[in-house]
Amino acid sequence: MEVRERERFVLDTSAFTNPETYALLGDSPREAFIRFLAFARTRRGDMEFFMPPSVYEELLRFVGPDDLPPDVELLIRLRPPRRYEVQVRGAFLYELIEEIRNRINKGLRVAETAVREVKGVKDPEATITRLRERYRTALRVGIIDSREDLELVLLALELDAALLSSDTGIFTWAEKLGVRLLHPKGIFTLAASVKVE
Amino acid sequence: MEVRERERFVLDTSAFTNPETYALLGDSPREAFIRFLAFARTRRGDMEFFMPPSVYEELLRFVGPDDLPPDVELLIRLRPPRRYEVQVRGAFLYELIEEIRNRINKGLRVAETAVREVKGVKDPEATITRLRERYRTALRVGIIDSREDLELVLLALELDAALLSSDTGIFTWAEKLGVRLLHPKGIFTLAASVKVE
Repeated sequence: MEVRERERFVLDTSAFTNPETYALLGDSPREAFIRFLAFARTRRGDMEFFMPPSVYEELLRFVGPDDLPPDVELLIRLRPPRRYEVQVRGAFLYELIEEIRNRINKGLRVAETAVREVKGVKDPEATITRLRERYRTALRVGIIDSREDLELVLLALELDAALLSSDTGIFTWAEKLGVRLLHPKGIFTLAASVKVE
Repeated sequence: MEVRERERFVLDTSAFTNPETYALLGDSPREAFIRFLAFARTRRGDMEFFMPPSVYEELLRFVGPDDLPPDVELLIRLRPPRRYEVQVRGAFLYELIEEIRNRINKGLRVAETAVREVKGVKDPEATITRLRERYRTALRVGIIDSREDLELVLLALELDAALLSSDTGIFTWAEKLGVRLLHPKGIFTLAASVKVE
């Protein structure tokens, strides 16, 4: 008897919410997700799909929790990382803190610019809206800044799984930890070829 | 022959720059540091003092690099943490990222307040100065946000040393990692009783 190890994948919400990728599988994140489940059902023999529960919660906000197939949690295993077991080297913390420090400094520059700008404008609310966008971009895009992002990366590390995401921040940090990266396009194109009854 | 293990201490700059603590040893950070070296000289048999080089550099900005005793680096061992060896659990990253996320949100509130405030004032520069202070407090005080802070905590962890600091941010994070904490007051009071020739 041949024993084959199944390939493991950790799925990020972004694969199903980024229009560039979900469009390969359907007209909405929900359609894409249900189509993907059909694919996962056909690959139970050689592929295992995982999501941290926090990330699955996030996904449900996009696809809706009702009327999902009864086997959804058999196809997408909800598994948090073992956060009291998985370890990272100190060097990873150096990079994280260096990056966060740079972002914090950028955030202050963005705030200063907004204060100077608002003097000349009529409506401070427009400046505040712009401030929020710029601040968000300066501080959040491209770094791990949420529990969900962290759980994706740690789970993929722990399970030695490929991380399926279209978020560059997650990719950057997963790369630092030696996690296998997988752009959703390839596997979604495969999934699209599966007939749904 | 009895073999005694020497007690290990990691020193933070703050012990020598905080007026509440350096005053126990002298009228300036420099005086306090030189006095502390005299104490360390008498305790070579039972105490070992360490500083990460990055933190020592920081200290030299306060005490001046010139005319220090020739044995300064024998008394204060300059030792970076082994950052490719020392490890932390994933759970530590959860706490770090949660805290940073809260700080980032606070920073945005501070920036918004400054934008609203500046509308009514003559001199935007005063608002910007206040913004910088408040932003710094919101984002930096009480967290590990620099390489120096991180190195102190990791070195104390790696060496199983007591961390001598008067910085609450460093204390908070060292505590999460199970590092022994030592307020400078006690050991500085001991050091003050050493006669300097």
